[in-house]
Amino acid sequence: MQGKKIAFIATDMVEEVELTKPWQAVKDAGGQPELRSIKSGEIQAFNHYDKSNKYKVDKEISSARMDDYDGLVIPGGVGNPDTMRMDQDAVEFVRSFFEAGKPVAVICHGPWMLVEADVARGRKLTSWPSLKTDIRNAGGNWVDEEVVRDSSRRASRTTCPRFARSSSRNSGRACTRASGRIQPPPRSGARAGVPCRGRGGGSSVGRAPGCGPGGRGFKSRPPPLAVA
Amino acid sequence: MQGKKIAFIATDMVEEVELTKPWQAVKDAGGQPELRSIKSGEIQAFNHYDKSNKYKVDKEISSARMDDYDGLVIPGGVGNPDTMRMDQDAVEFVRSFFEAGKPVAVICHGPWMLVEADVARGRKLTSWPSLKTDIRNAGGNWVDEEVVRDSSRRASRTTCPRFARSSSRNSGRACTRASGRIQPPPRSGARAGVPCRGRGGGSSVGRAPGCGPGGRGFKSRPPPLAVA
Repeated sequence: MQGKKIAFIATDMVEEVELTKPWQAVKDAGGQPELRSIKSGEIQAFNHYDKSNKYKVDKEISSARMDDYDGLVIPGGVGNPDTMRMDQDAVEFVRSFFEAGKPVAVICHGPWMLVEADVARGRKLTSWPSLKTDIRNAGGNWVDEEVVRDSSRRASRTTCPRFARSSSRNSGRACTRASGRIQPPPRSGARAGVPCRGRGGGSSVGRAPGCGPGGRGFKSRPPPLAVA
Repeated sequence: MQGKKIAFIATDMVEEVELTKPWQAVKDAGGQPELRSIKSGEIQAFNHYDKSNKYKVDKEISSARMDDYDGLVIPGGVGNPDTMRMDQDAVEFVRSFFEAGKPVAVICHGPWMLVEADVARGRKLTSWPSLKTDIRNAGGNWVDEEVVRDSSRRASRTTCPRFARSSSRNSGRACTRASGRIQPPPRSGARAGVPCRGRGGGSSVGRAPGCGPGGRGFKSRPPPLAVA
């Protein structure tokens, strides 16, 4: 993971913990996360239906090139992929990782992006349970498991990507799917709407007080993850 | 419509205007709307991603019988059908209207309920654009039109139900689909979280100051509606 560049794609209503936890796992493993969005400026993260912090977008997806990254993470939050899937640049960006056989980690509602890119077909996937029918209708093999690893179609693609299965305890715990609701993470203490800016790193997401993932854990029910 | 009983099904994150406008249209036409939900108490309506008013649930869906109603309305709001589609009682309730050939009006993200009930197959439908692929993968004929009427499979089922196509100007305008984002309705002036209770009617949804649909209109972009 050392020096590897990982694209995170997200927009408003991204589930905060599904952005911040994998982000921190990438950093802890020596990788370089970068936030791409369909909009510039900041995106509004949520804890389920409650607004939480805002996160600065590094670059827009429209200018993104898959060749510049070693992997892709797609967090959930119901409104996040619901909006991103209508953006052709975002859909093409996702598809390009599958075509190149690069590792992709998808969490919660994120697999709608795989449905939209028509790359769910023939894959074993899990997700937030509401997506079950959409994934199956798209030709995916949806299973009710905490973690799914799929490598059936891309020999070079790891199943649960190493950057999301690193030795980091937080990272490992992010690779699970719960059958119930997402439990919001512990209160951040940060005011909603306060931009979170990175400290001491190339990242613009993250470690301002209360904004970063430090110290947070999936104490009860971890968010779902589908790894394609 | 006089005396007809119309079931509205919704839960948290229902798009407020998609609940209140058709509701008022039913009342204006002499019908009796009733709010059924997968939970008791109140549901939290949204204006896109902003919390708005709460609405009192008349009864839970689990005790609902299709025979007790003359028609069904399924409002949108991304989190609303995303949650309801995981409730088997809600899905069966929707399916029963199609099996009986009773009129159903579906708005915005509402068609996910038709996908889940497997009643989209072979039907001409529209929706919020993000659902296009899910509807097509479910066998539906998704079209990018403002209003869709479908009667191909159920001779007894009207296309755009009369209660949603009444002479009410507001109602008629609710029967349209926009290609862009939903524009939130004018500010209600009511504080979020304040329960809205009906006035002078059997309904519990409604007309408290700022809560009801009175005076609101789709000034620019009306919400999508799929009529199945």
